[in-house]
Amino acid sequence: MTRFKITLEYDGSHFIGWQRQSNGVSVQEVLEDAAACLNNKAPVLVYGAGRTDTGVHATGQVAHLDLNRAITGDRLRAALNALVRPHPVSVLDCQAVPEEFHARFSAISRRYLFRILDRVAPPALDYNRVWWVSHPLDLDAMNAATEVLLGHHDFTSFRATHCQAKSPLRTLDHFKFRRVGAEIHSDIEARSFLHNQVRIMIGSLRFVGEGKWTKDDLYKALKAKDRCAAGPTARPEGLYLAHIGYPPLYDSLQTL
Amino acid sequence: MTRFKITLEYDGSHFIGWQRQSNGVSVQEVLEDAAACLNNKAPVLVYGAGRTDTGVHATGQVAHLDLNRAITGDRLRAALNALVRPHPVSVLDCQAVPEEFHARFSAISRRYLFRILDRVAPPALDYNRVWWVSHPLDLDAMNAATEVLLGHHDFTSFRATHCQAKSPLRTLDHFKFRRVGAEIHSDIEARSFLHNQVRIMIGSLRFVGEGKWTKDDLYKALKAKDRCAAGPTARPEGLYLAHIGYPPLYDSLQTL
Repeated sequence: MTRFKITLEYDGSHFIGWQRQSNGVSVQEVLEDAAACLNNKAPVLVYGAGRTDTGVHATGQVAHLDLNRAITGDRLRAALNALVRPHPVSVLDCQAVPEEFHARFSAISRRYLFRILDRVAPPALDYNRVWWVSHPLDLDAMNAATEVLLGHHDFTSFRATHCQAKSPLRTLDHFKFRRVGAEIHSDIEARSFLHNQVRIMIGSLRFVGEGKWTKDDLYKALKAKDRCAAGPTARPEGLYLAHIGYPPLYDSLQTL
Repeated sequence: MTRFKITLEYDGSHFIGWQRQSNGVSVQEVLEDAAACLNNKAPVLVYGAGRTDTGVHATGQVAHLDLNRAITGDRLRAALNALVRPHPVSVLDCQAVPEEFHARFSAISRRYLFRILDRVAPPALDYNRVWWVSHPLDLDAMNAATEVLLGHHDFTSFRATHCQAKSPLRTLDHFKFRRVGAEIHSDIEARSFLHNQVRIMIGSLRFVGEGKWTKDDLYKALKAKDRCAAGPTARPEGLYLAHIGYPPLYDSLQTL
């Protein structure tokens, strides 16, 4: 048995999300079905580092799987890319790893990208790739307000009401907005996130960018520890799971 | 009668091209049908600055049209964006212009963007937005070779055999490749281009990037004045009509 770490890109608009579900096609199902063809037809379980929701994309999702045959990482990548067609999933990298590697539990950081298109004209090219806000947002005000959320906090106000995590405490390590052409991109990093945390934070920061909320309003929303105190959940199509960090032992294996 | 200059973004993968055709949906047809609804049902002709081929995108196509009613540019933009749905066309800007303005004949420069994804894994997110080449290209060699094509030349080798232009002489003002993440982007500018000129130049430069051709091979291809001497035509999905330049008189009207 060999364990493989795979790095993935996918178009979330074609999937019900990462996790296998009975009511739609998931990224996990597509990968597990492809991997089974390379495992003498025996079922394969594919474990993802993060469970992306319906419509959420990935440019750097990581998963692991075990195969009962010998194969090089490069050949496995090529075989999986052939077998997942025509689903919009691409295996960017594939490495044999020690058996104790676990895509989810070995991860020490997760980074997301959020893309906002803030212009009056709707997107024609990126219609399910960005969150369209039909008026310009105040980037400086948004960046100043992110300070409120950085660090270790109780993020109860910024988690989905059905979130399963035991603790609402999380440490937000990085949260910055930058202008990229007609878009605003945000890089958000933490060891882990609560369910919908990124999208609720973005939905709240949009209020700041529109001048509806001050930095202090955002602080009050955080302190309220109440989902109703924060802004609405941002649309999933602007969200990309961009990078999963692992301890140097595993990271040195990455070639990308 | 008022003449309007409109700036457009569209997803070329959903259209047979810019020009109205009997065998598929064109951008021109979608816009003309929408504009007729705003012209007391009288037909409207929409003239584009460049006739993009099937699959070619635009982020800055310009067109003009005449309406028999009074309407502000902002209202026309909003009305057209509502009427073109669900086709992936977006009117970015709309300005009333002097009657002598002509989107095609007043243009003094045209700029294209070409996106190449040069990595082993196929694109999952940008599968009809980039030209996928499954191995890394030598950016420096490609940039050095573009020198051969810059300036005033007979571009017979780099025009489609069915190209209708009277003269094969064109002046290439700018041609540069740059690395953008996992992609190579190229900016190409001239007053005007021959049919398929950009895509044949890119298809030839790919040979240079792969080490199959030297800069001198590219020079010989140009001098041969024979389509068969140049490389293959690059795929349309990597090509974007990015900007149309007009004399300062008209450009000062632009707000974008």
